Amino acid sequence: MQSSERRKRAKQELREKIFDAARTLFAHEGYSAVTMRRIAEKIEYSATAIYTHFKDKEALMHELCASDFLTLMSHFKKIFTIADPVERLRQLGALYADFAIKHPNHYRLMFMTPRPFDSTVQAWIEKGNPQQDSYALLKAAVQACIEEGHFNQAHRDADLLAQALWSAVHGLVSLHITLHNDPWIEWRPLKKTLRTLLDALVCGFTSKTARPKQGN
Amino acid sequence: MQSSERRKRAKQELREKIFDAARTLFAHEGYSAVTMRRIAEKIEYSATAIYTHFKDKEALMHELCASDFLTLMSHFKKIFTIADPVERLRQLGALYADFAIKHPNHYRLMFMTPRPFDSTVQAWIEKGNPQQDSYALLKAAVQACIEEGHFNQAHRDADLLAQALWSAVHGLVSLHITLHNDPWIEWRPLKKTLRTLLDALVCGFTSKTARPKQGN
Repeated sequence: MQSSERRKRAKQELREKIFDAARTLFAHEGYSAVTMRRIAEKIEYSATAIYTHFKDKEALMHELCASDFLTLMSHFKKIFTIADPVERLRQLGALYADFAIKHPNHYRLMFMTPRPFDSTVQAWIEKGNPQQDSYALLKAAVQACIEEGHFNQAHRDADLLAQALWSAVHGLVSLHITLHNDPWIEWRPLKKTLRTLLDALVCGFTSKTARPKQGN
Repeated sequence: MQSSERRKRAKQELREKIFDAARTLFAHEGYSAVTMRRIAEKIEYSATAIYTHFKDKEALMHELCASDFLTLMSHFKKIFTIADPVERLRQLGALYADFAIKHPNHYRLMFMTPRPFDSTVQAWIEKGNPQQDSYALLKAAVQACIEEGHFNQAHRDADLLAQALWSAVHGLVSLHITLHNDPWIEWRPLKKTLRTLLDALVCGFTSKTARPKQGN
């Protein structure tokens, strides 16, 4: 291996190491409580070494998020081969939950930790492109259900339905990540609750019968 | 006011002050990252003063959680006057979301922060009593729907349905608390998404028609 390649690989490895340390610290202690110095200490590097890779904590957070969102997208690959949009929605829910359970620190950082928002993430992820943007992928699947006539006439707003579906699956996995050891609750298996949620929501969105009784 | 009463009131006020400081720190930086000394510093007291009220951080956390869960229960008072169990479920969802949005720090601590679990909470809250235990209240409302024949035959497990409903509403409010400023998403109004979720779930649980197509 040429020395320039070796340097490139070493640089990439150090970036991954910084990402892992930062992800764990941000996810467990909150973005604002963690300093670049703490991240450096965790991997036994000097803060100066980290600053040669990321100009500040915000830049590190944005690159880390972009990288983790692309990892999530790679988890969704098989979605693009599913022709039936209702089945695509179900599989999206199942794969999303699977990602959260397999990568709880990624998930905490991406969806459970307040963070600064900045359009620079768009340098890595094209907003609205279902191949790169996970929310756009979900919305496109909902849109396809609407356009192909799978949903009832009351349900025409793809953002609203996407947010309802996302909420349900996010709630399930985030309760699991935070409270699955809580002996107060007799937890049902996550996959069973997920199936119950997705079945009920799909039934509610597709039902051709009258809408249920309205509350206040 | 007698001096013993004055002392009692002063003691109660200090406890509330400690609770407020601890809740904010635990909710934003995580239970494990926060020390008793940090909590004391936040209210400009000595750590010794805090230890006269709570023997250690765990005892403080348990009393704080018990207190906040009882606050949540007081938010549910009107539930007990609603005769129709399906309407009771809807109102539970609406009041739960309302509590979370009004008291985001309480909510973060109670449902979004990993914490030590201990049966000493039962010194304050009787587990399984729907007047004190919010999960028991939800489960009892689901159980009433099942027993009064509102749900379809496939849905007989009150824990499973309670956890599905809780997940959906928790997901909605926790995404709101964490990401409502995220410009990436064109958020729909929370109440509208809540209504959509509850309508669809109630429809799914009550529907007498065939269950929707099953995924893998």
